[in-house]
Amino acid sequence: MAGTQEEVYRASTYAPVNIAVIKYWGKKNVELNTPTNSSLSVTLSQDDLRTHTTALCSVETAKDSLTLNGKDQDISGARTQACFRELRALRKELESKDASLPKLADMKLKIVSENNFPTAAGLASSAAGFAALVRAIANLYQLPSSPADLSRIARQGSGSACRSLFGGYSAWEQGSQADGSDSAAYEVAPASHWPEMRAAILVASAEKKDVSSTAGMQLTVATSPLFQERIKNVVPKRMKAMEKAVHDRDFESFAALTMKDSNNFHACCMDTFPPIFYMNSTSHAAIRLCDAINAAADKTVCAYTFDAGPNAVVYYLAENETQVAGAIKAVLGDKTGWEDKRGQSIKAAGTPLPNTEAATETLKKGISRVILTSVGDGPRKTDQHLC
Amino acid sequence: MAGTQEEVYRASTYAPVNIAVIKYWGKKNVELNTPTNSSLSVTLSQDDLRTHTTALCSVETAKDSLTLNGKDQDISGARTQACFRELRALRKELESKDASLPKLADMKLKIVSENNFPTAAGLASSAAGFAALVRAIANLYQLPSSPADLSRIARQGSGSACRSLFGGYSAWEQGSQADGSDSAAYEVAPASHWPEMRAAILVASAEKKDVSSTAGMQLTVATSPLFQERIKNVVPKRMKAMEKAVHDRDFESFAALTMKDSNNFHACCMDTFPPIFYMNSTSHAAIRLCDAINAAADKTVCAYTFDAGPNAVVYYLAENETQVAGAIKAVLGDKTGWEDKRGQSIKAAGTPLPNTEAATETLKKGISRVILTSVGDGPRKTDQHLC
Repeated sequence: MAGTQEEVYRASTYAPVNIAVIKYWGKKNVELNTPTNSSLSVTLSQDDLRTHTTALCSVETAKDSLTLNGKDQDISGARTQACFRELRALRKELESKDASLPKLADMKLKIVSENNFPTAAGLASSAAGFAALVRAIANLYQLPSSPADLSRIARQGSGSACRSLFGGYSAWEQGSQADGSDSAAYEVAPASHWPEMRAAILVASAEKKDVSSTAGMQLTVATSPLFQERIKNVVPKRMKAMEKAVHDRDFESFAALTMKDSNNFHACCMDTFPPIFYMNSTSHAAIRLCDAINAAADKTVCAYTFDAGPNAVVYYLAENETQVAGAIKAVLGDKTGWEDKRGQSIKAAGTPLPNTEAATETLKKGISRVILTSVGDGPRKTDQHLC
Repeated sequence: MAGTQEEVYRASTYAPVNIAVIKYWGKKNVELNTPTNSSLSVTLSQDDLRTHTTALCSVETAKDSLTLNGKDQDISGARTQACFRELRALRKELESKDASLPKLADMKLKIVSENNFPTAAGLASSAAGFAALVRAIANLYQLPSSPADLSRIARQGSGSACRSLFGGYSAWEQGSQADGSDSAAYEVAPASHWPEMRAAILVASAEKKDVSSTAGMQLTVATSPLFQERIKNVVPKRMKAMEKAVHDRDFESFAALTMKDSNNFHACCMDTFPPIFYMNSTSHAAIRLCDAINAAADKTVCAYTFDAGPNAVVYYLAENETQVAGAIKAVLGDKTGWEDKRGQSIKAAGTPLPNTEAATETLKKGISRVILTSVGDGPRKTDQHLC
C-alpha cells in the first residue's frame, strides 16, 4: 500500500545490553569505528535490562529527532548520522525496486527510546541504545537485512552495539577490509545453547567516570606499549579459546578467560599515559570476594568482569547460584535488587567466607544496588509503541 | 695485630634507601636472585632515611644473630645465609694470604641494625637493610671489595639492595652469566652530578600489603602475558633513555620515564592472575595531584612513582620546590613531616589547583605523613656502634 500524506509509519523493538568477556578497547579507524581487536560478549536478558525504541516517520514529521527517557538527544554527531544514512540508503534501494512502496526514506525520523535501567550507571546503555535504534528503523523500513548486516550499521553508531543485534553469545569480528565492510558481529552460540549462564551486576555508587571510553581507548592506542601486545597476541589467542569454551559449555575456561581479559584490559588502561583508572577500591573488593567464592568452592564457579567503570559483572551458572549469588547476598543483601521472585529465592550464605572482612566492608559502602540477570535473546519486535 | 681471645671486632655503617625509577619486578633465577630486567634508582639522603648497622664478632660470640630495631630477626633464610657465606669466603681468602690477620671468618657474627624510619611503611627498608649488613661486615672484615663486588653479594640478600651500595643514580645490570656473576649494580652518576633532585614521599596510612613483593613478582612472571613485553622491549628501551636523561640532567625526560615505568609495572601487577593491586585510591589521587601540578606549570616539574605499596614518591628539582612541594603542602600541610627547617621553608600554595577537589579530599584522608628528602650519597662508615 502506497503511503498517503496522512499515513504515519511506526515500528518498535526492544534491544538487549551485552557485557563483553573479551573486551573491545581501541579503534583501528575512528571514522569507520572499526576496532583494533575482535571481542566477545554475553547478551543479557531483556526482562531485566533493555532499551525500548520506537521509530516513526510520516510526511508530517518535521525533522529527525531522538528522545531518550524523555530528553531530546543531539543527533548531529557523525555516529548517529551514519546509522540514519546507511538505513535510508537500504530503504531507498528497496523503494527503487518496488514503486508501490511508500517513500519512507525521504521522510524525517522520530525516534523515541526508553531504558528500563539507569542510563548513567555505566551499564552499556549505548550498546543497547544503538542496537535498538538500528533494529527499530530496519523494522520500520521493512529491510530484509540480516542481523549481521544491521550489526555493521550499529557498529558505526557505537562499537559494542553491534553485538547487541544477537542474543546469547556473540562476537565482533574486527575485520580487515579498508572500508570496514567485514567488521561486524556474528552469533557464537544462541542463548539456548548455554541458557544456564547467570549474571549478578554489582552497581557501584555513582561516581564520575575517570575518562570517557571513547577518549580513553584512543589514548591507550597512542601511548601504551603493552597495548600492542594485547591486540597482537593476547586477544587473538583468547578469542579462539573463548569461542571454544562457549561451544563446549566449559565454565571454568570461560571464567578464567573472562577474568584475565578484564584484568588485561584494565592493565592497558593503567599503562596509558596519563594512566586511566576505571576500577576503584570497590571493584578491587568485588574481585577479592569472587576470589574467595572460588577458593571456597575449590573450583572456578564465578567470574568478574569490569567495563570502563567500577561496576562488577559476575557471571556464574544456575547450578552454582547458592555458592555465588548466595555469598553476594550475604554481603549485599540489604541493597536494592533482591526483591523479586528470583532474588528472594536466593538464600544468603550463613557464614562469611574466610578473609573477606575488608572486602565486605568496602562492598557494603561502595555498592548501591544489585541486578540479577541471565543470558538472553536478541532484539524483540514489539507492538508497544512509544509514540 | 692478631686477635686475642678477648678481642672484640666491630664495624658500623649507615646505608641509604633507594627508590627505583625503572622498576625491578621478576626474578630470572630465584636461587641466585637475578632479575628479569635491569633497573635504575635514585639513592635517597641518609640524613632522612637510613639503616644504621653494626657488625661485631669475637671468639665469644656464640651464634650468628641479627637484631633490627631491637627485635631478633630470623637469619636462617637462604638469602641472609648467602650474604654471610660469601663475605666469610672473601675474608677467608684474605686470612689465607696473610697469617697475621685475626681469624674473623671463623667467628660468629652479631649484627645490630636500626632504621630511622618506620620499617613497615613500605619504604624499601630491605634494600637499605641488606646494603648496610653487607657493607658493615665488609668493613669489619676489611675487605678490599669494590661497591660493585659488594652489590653482587647484597643482591643475593634482597635484589634492590644492590643499588644501595652506591649513592646518586645507580643501576642494576641484570647480567647474562648463568652463575649471576655479572648481575650487579653500577653508578650511573654520583649525587654531585645532579644534586638538585628532591623527593617528597607521601606515606599512606598503614594498610596490609596485597601480596608480598617476593611472591607477587613471581606470580607476575608466571601468569602475565604483558610482562614478557615489559621485560623484552619496554624496559631495555627505557633503561637507555633513563641513563641518558640522568647524564643530560633532563628532568622532563627523567620524569616522563619515571611515571610511565611505574604505571607499566603496576599494569603488569594488574595483568597478573589473580591480579595484584598495590596502588589504592590514595595512590590514584596522588597521581591526579601530580598531573594537576604539571598541568599548572605547563611542563613536567614532578614525577610520581610507586613501589609494591600505596606510598607515592614524588621527584622534583630544587628549582621547582614551590610549585611541587608547595602544592603538596597546601593539601597535606597538617601532616607530620613539615616541621624541620626544610619543611618550614616551603610555602604552601595559596590557591588550590584546578580539578583537584576529589584528589585533595582522598589524600587528606589517606596520607599519614610526608617525608621530604633528596638524592644522597652511598653508605657512610661510622664509629657510632650499636653494640
